[in-house]
Amino acid sequence: MAFPWAVDPGLADRIDRIARQRGVTVAGSGLNPGLIFDALVLTALGLAWDVREIRVRRVVNCSRFSPTVLRRLGFGFTETEFRQGAAAGAIYGHIGFPQSIRAVAGRLEVPIERLEKAIEPLIADREYPMDRMTVSAGQSAGFRQTVTAVSGGKPWFTAELIGHAAPEQAGFEREDTIDIEGDAPAHLSIRPGCDAQLGSAAMIVNSMRRVVEAPPGLLTVADLPPASPTLTPPKG
Amino acid sequence: MAFPWAVDPGLADRIDRIARQRGVTVAGSGLNPGLIFDALVLTALGLAWDVREIRVRRVVNCSRFSPTVLRRLGFGFTETEFRQGAAAGAIYGHIGFPQSIRAVAGRLEVPIERLEKAIEPLIADREYPMDRMTVSAGQSAGFRQTVTAVSGGKPWFTAELIGHAAPEQAGFEREDTIDIEGDAPAHLSIRPGCDAQLGSAAMIVNSMRRVVEAPPGLLTVADLPPASPTLTPPKG
Repeated sequence: MAFPWAVDPGLADRIDRIARQRGVTVAGSGLNPGLIFDALVLTALGLAWDVREIRVRRVVNCSRFSPTVLRRLGFGFTETEFRQGAAAGAIYGHIGFPQSIRAVAGRLEVPIERLEKAIEPLIADREYPMDRMTVSAGQSAGFRQTVTAVSGGKPWFTAELIGHAAPEQAGFEREDTIDIEGDAPAHLSIRPGCDAQLGSAAMIVNSMRRVVEAPPGLLTVADLPPASPTLTPPKG
Repeated sequence: MAFPWAVDPGLADRIDRIARQRGVTVAGSGLNPGLIFDALVLTALGLAWDVREIRVRRVVNCSRFSPTVLRRLGFGFTETEFRQGAAAGAIYGHIGFPQSIRAVAGRLEVPIERLEKAIEPLIADREYPMDRMTVSAGQSAGFRQTVTAVSGGKPWFTAELIGHAAPEQAGFEREDTIDIEGDAPAHLSIRPGCDAQLGSAAMIVNSMRRVVEAPPGLLTVADLPPASPTLTPPKG
């Protein structure tokens, strides 16, 4: 729902049309999609004179995720199993990158020729216990995923996600970074990287007001003001 | 113009009323106010569960500023001259912090009891040549300014600006940082800190589209989507 045109443009346009007819606003937003790879990128792009390339990288501690989510992200497989699962489409990492990238590219009016997707296992050299699943040495305790949007024959937006049972112990600093390259480059970082669960919940709750206040239609974070919370009790 | 209610609420309301009557949008936005101390803060606040305190700190290289601006910022004075000038209101640093703070507080519906302002000279231990002014040893080659908004008797939003002829040589990393303290803290940094001239110009140009597209009235960055540029030639 963050950018449904990425999946089914006809259906997205239909949702938009019906929402306008009924005078309601429809929007999808969380942490990712919703902030790190899109709203924060679009906000930082205010600094841009031109944009040669955008790279966003996020490192997530996945130790509190459910086993169902962990399996589709690619946890607990041998390298062979992981690659077979990825080829078969059973292991696919995070699914929202095309949505974030197309929300940004759409707002900037940059044509995307294709998306290149890759996912690699991060094989554990020891046991990694998580909240609800334990990974043994020799199994994947994480993954490195990239989705690259190509424009003009060159990488224009690369989204990279490293998910791990214990990122710091595997040598990954828990950090979210945005690098905008161009005439006036901008480099943002959030440290430690945003907590997946707390951040997603906050983004959804904090988005309620901006969605209620927005004009009708199917909107994205490119159309909406920031998802800032209200801190006093609601009035009236 | 970033938040004119901070200076004259009656006049701001009048501009808003006339803008609505005439069907036009009025907004002020640049780098500061406009991004670092307000739009980026509001965007990061999407992550917040509660907000105990906000601190934003910016380090600026002022070497390319004009002598007129440098004098009112407090460059080229002895410590005594600086303190006298500050007391007399002739040296006052950056003027937009109340606007940024009130734009954020207003959106979050946090009542601000008072603003506490302070400015201190950074005295040079050697000569600092700038583009259009040279500061001698013993004179101010920069300043440290804070504006603190007090809510509930405690500091709620502290804006800090360090301006210097050569920040790195004086021991200040050129970095803009946003620290949101609360149940789900968030710590953002931009390195190197945004270039004052390039960033302001970009923010103004990149804001044109969002202002044209916005509903009528006097709006702030709390009401507007991100100031993202259009990268393809305009159509039609």
